[in-house]
Amino acid sequence: MEKPHLTFWFDFASTYSYLSAMRIGDMARDRGVAVTWQPFLLGPIFHAQGWDTSPFRIYPAKGVYMWRDMQRLTAARGLPFLDTPPDHWPAHSVLAARVAQLALKHPEGPEFCRQVYLAEFRDGAEIAAPETLATCLTRAGLSAALVDTATEPQNKAALRQVVETAQAKGIFGAPSFTVGDELFWGDDRLDAALDWAATS
Amino acid sequence: MEKPHLTFWFDFASTYSYLSAMRIGDMARDRGVAVTWQPFLLGPIFHAQGWDTSPFRIYPAKGVYMWRDMQRLTAARGLPFLDTPPDHWPAHSVLAARVAQLALKHPEGPEFCRQVYLAEFRDGAEIAAPETLATCLTRAGLSAALVDTATEPQNKAALRQVVETAQAKGIFGAPSFTVGDELFWGDDRLDAALDWAATS
Repeated sequence: MEKPHLTFWFDFASTYSYLSAMRIGDMARDRGVAVTWQPFLLGPIFHAQGWDTSPFRIYPAKGVYMWRDMQRLTAARGLPFLDTPPDHWPAHSVLAARVAQLALKHPEGPEFCRQVYLAEFRDGAEIAAPETLATCLTRAGLSAALVDTATEPQNKAALRQVVETAQAKGIFGAPSFTVGDELFWGDDRLDAALDWAATS
Repeated sequence: MEKPHLTFWFDFASTYSYLSAMRIGDMARDRGVAVTWQPFLLGPIFHAQGWDTSPFRIYPAKGVYMWRDMQRLTAARGLPFLDTPPDHWPAHSVLAARVAQLALKHPEGPEFCRQVYLAEFRDGAEIAAPETLATCLTRAGLSAALVDTATEPQNKAALRQVVETAQAKGIFGAPSFTVGDELFWGDDRLDAALDWAATS
């Protein structure tokens, strides 16, 4: 029998993706589920829905609520989180996603992703900056040179392909989890998605 | 010491509000939390955000996902739910909200609300129809004549006032739960909201 499997779709600009990134490793291991970490970009998907930026910016009431909700959730889970959104939020996450694609070819890839989220939501760092990503690579035990390789045409094309795949799967937000054709949206559904993977 | 208290904001057109309506009574009783059932309308709030209808209709991928998510959740909770959205979905919920305002002056009010959700999502009935609401009133042990009283100017004005209050509180979706100034959005946050009420 094959090991149960789940794909974790995340955007580095997404606050709720941060929540899942910090716990999916342990939760999946406990249940014997293999996880594919799949960085992608919400930007092109939001754009196709007629949004130019994060819905949290377009609908301020939702943005204010989201930050408060994140404060409550991170406090309950013992995770760091900024008191207020940085000026440069939501982050331009395309370079981070390109670097993550390369980092995730190594066992240290998930740790790199966690370091990016911590730089962003604990330290308030600008994750669009190559220096920030180089630091995160080093912290995860990977080569900072991956930042340069990340912008090679083949790697950029690979990310575009991933975004198309996400849209074709009906993904419209982050984090999302897929088990075959079954889609789960939001950190609130991580438990259910892992259960689905473990029992299907 | 006053009894802990929570306000439950719901729209009869909202699928996730149905989930909360069916369980909030028991959950709140178990924790000793008093609940005010507060029907309101998402329509004017969505309209202020630039939407003419439900976001689930505007963004079809989200609508498809939501229905599947509801199927999984209702199956897990043993609740009935339609296989596909009825043609008249999302419902025009204004008359139901007006009737609920009157019904909720009686102890049978919550049962009337549950009957409306069951008519809508179990039976596929058109809840904008006065006959449907009359049936729900009867099932809850209330007078069907409340349907006529519901459209009196004073009751219509009261509902408009409620929607303004909801907007002033930063409510942007349903169900929502408020404990003082603390806002929780979504059936996924019902547990956390009740905990907040019980411990604050």
